[in-house]
Amino acid sequence: MEVKPIGVIRTPFNKIDNMPVQPKGGMEIEGKVHVDCQYAQGLKDVEGFSHLYLLYLWHKAQQSQLIVKPFMDPSLRGIFSTRSPSRPNPIGLSIVRLVKVDGSVLTIRGVDVLDGTPLIDIKPYIHAFDSVENSRSGWMRSSEDEVIQRRSDCRFQ
Amino acid sequence: MEVKPIGVIRTPFNKIDNMPVQPKGGMEIEGKVHVDCQYAQGLKDVEGFSHLYLLYLWHKAQQSQLIVKPFMDPSLRGIFSTRSPSRPNPIGLSIVRLVKVDGSVLTIRGVDVLDGTPLIDIKPYIHAFDSVENSRSGWMRSSEDEVIQRRSDCRFQ
Repeated sequence: MEVKPIGVIRTPFNKIDNMPVQPKGGMEIEGKVHVDCQYAQGLKDVEGFSHLYLLYLWHKAQQSQLIVKPFMDPSLRGIFSTRSPSRPNPIGLSIVRLVKVDGSVLTIRGVDVLDGTPLIDIKPYIHAFDSVENSRSGWMRSSEDEVIQRRSDCRFQ
Repeated sequence: MEVKPIGVIRTPFNKIDNMPVQPKGGMEIEGKVHVDCQYAQGLKDVEGFSHLYLLYLWHKAQQSQLIVKPFMDPSLRGIFSTRSPSRPNPIGLSIVRLVKVDGSVLTIRGVDVLDGTPLIDIKPYIHAFDSVENSRSGWMRSSEDEVIQRRSDCRFQ
């Protein structure tokens, strides 16, 4: 199937080096989502949600690798147990906080993607569907503090 | 960008009618994820996670609509404020519980997709990244009980 960009994500990050590795590491960092005019009508009612999922293409990711060394761990891990970009289908998923809707432009906080990242979908974060209680996070034993501190490097470029 | 299936999701649902509309409505319903052999190595370490995001193609969804009447609401809503399948890029996202990994086959619970749905990605659910506290869910005022009871119909077919 062909996936088409429906807009673009604007952020202060022009290079992968030193970017937050997760939205929670960029909680105060503001970005914009510019939705193409032809899809703007689909943004109706979005302003009622405090958080959104953004689906986007990792347009700078290197070729798919099935085993990777993720940012948060010194060991080699299977790609599907990580959130690394070098996946068979390089589609990224971030939960961001919605600050404002202005026509076809969303102001968001908690940005962890490169400036110019092609957007492919927006979905509302819905507590009743998306909150998981008592989950177990496998090898990811890092504390939230570590996630917030950690910055990326060029390993997936 | 071309998105390629990396496997298939097997469920007891052969038709859209009467299917749960969200994973939480199918919490006890078991399904299987068959990952294509060529990607099986990427499943290393997945067994440590209790919950996974599945990304998949809504292969039976009708053409994209920007305004829809969702399952959980009598009003017309912008597509990006809903989880409806008729999106510009018909990519679905479900959080499922991982029961077992057996080679390239995952047993899961909490299935809300049609049998034969093409899988395009698996990502671990990681509490430190993915839990949102104090979110606001816009028009979606349904209680969790309503989500669990609600079943689909053919409106997006």
